[in-house]
Amino acid sequence: MTLLNIPTATISRLVTYLRILEKLESAVVNRTSSKHLSDLAQVSAFQVRKDLAYFGRFGTRGMGYTVGVLKRELRRILGLTRPWNVVILGMGRLGQAIANYPGASEYEFSFVGLFDVDPHKIGNGVRHLTIEPMDSLEGFVKRLKAQGEGVEMGFLAVPPDKAQEAAQILVEAGVKGVLNFAPVVLQPRTLEGGGREGELAEEWKGVVVENVDFLAGMKRLAFYILNPNLKELEMEVSV
Amino acid sequence: MTLLNIPTATISRLVTYLRILEKLESAVVNRTSSKHLSDLAQVSAFQVRKDLAYFGRFGTRGMGYTVGVLKRELRRILGLTRPWNVVILGMGRLGQAIANYPGASEYEFSFVGLFDVDPHKIGNGVRHLTIEPMDSLEGFVKRLKAQGEGVEMGFLAVPPDKAQEAAQILVEAGVKGVLNFAPVVLQPRTLEGGGREGELAEEWKGVVVENVDFLAGMKRLAFYILNPNLKELEMEVSV
Repeated sequence: MTLLNIPTATISRLVTYLRILEKLESAVVNRTSSKHLSDLAQVSAFQVRKDLAYFGRFGTRGMGYTVGVLKRELRRILGLTRPWNVVILGMGRLGQAIANYPGASEYEFSFVGLFDVDPHKIGNGVRHLTIEPMDSLEGFVKRLKAQGEGVEMGFLAVPPDKAQEAAQILVEAGVKGVLNFAPVVLQPRTLEGGGREGELAEEWKGVVVENVDFLAGMKRLAFYILNPNLKELEMEVSV
Repeated sequence: MTLLNIPTATISRLVTYLRILEKLESAVVNRTSSKHLSDLAQVSAFQVRKDLAYFGRFGTRGMGYTVGVLKRELRRILGLTRPWNVVILGMGRLGQAIANYPGASEYEFSFVGLFDVDPHKIGNGVRHLTIEPMDSLEGFVKRLKAQGEGVEMGFLAVPPDKAQEAAQILVEAGVKGVLNFAPVVLQPRTLEGGGREGELAEEWKGVVVENVDFLAGMKRLAFYILNPNLKELEMEVSV
């Protein structure tokens, strides 16, 4: 199946639907519907059906969905049926909070390496891991690769003014997925001069970045506190 | 001006454009354009123009924008020209990381209160504040109100299974903006029985919630690592 243009908001909502389905399953609820899911996800039932329709047909018209089946389908769509090895760059308060967050190792996500530049942090233990120097990241990724493992995700929890540099270290080490916690837009390196000017540098090809930025969240919240009707309006218009 | 249905993604991007404009201003760049902004924000120039057009006309056709003017306009649109008092509920590692994050007190955001239920944390100092018991929140908000101040935003940094309960405490104290860090969809309380069944409970009316959820970020990232073309495609299609 070819996936056509899918809004990023749809992917965010699929994550939400999955979370709700897991909660329903653990409450031994076996059946659900677009209406039921939409109430719990705080979106419209039309939106639920539209989001799912990008990925095929689920459930039976008028009969709703089997919770366990839809949950498995969403896990498959999102790529949560395979293991993901994760490293964290920056082990200040935020990196520590992430590494220790309950549920962060759910599914097949595993923190396999923690890195920092601060000599006072390097060598310290966090859960079952030891903080390593940032410049050992590339060797670390290579060693795992030699063992038939990969590092697929890197979390940037460094200070904002170090995020671009840390991102470069991460992608040069061959990590293709970046979760960026810093309030900066990461800029991929492009080539200079010659016929390839402006082209993405090799290490940035295929790299995907997701941002989790609470400073931006504060600002969005300010807007919606001043314009509360816009949140409701959006739901109504999408029905 | 009446604001019609504005996508939440547009509000997120306005925050990004503002960040870029601030960076340009501090680099003493005075002029910019949709193309320039779009390169730095990693979106299409069409998208930049479309996002801004929701809020009026900025800049001059073919001449681009004055950095300082557009920055001030975006700050005004987002509501960042007035002070915002913020409380944090949950002072574990994540709450600590937020309270201490560099730049968290930029603009007019001020952390005015920190709350927890853990007797070992209550009384501890964090920056210029002292952690207070969660059940003193309502009195705290009232005292500020009596002084002509308000508490407009509450951050939920409690464990996931406590988020709904903490949200209820927050809105009952009269806080209308919730920044939720927990990987749960907050459910507003609705009325039961009588003619008003299903209606929002009084304390939830006008409440807006923004989610900043890194576990969801990990899952979105998994999807995009497996489907890297979807991110690029989205940009191309939107042109």
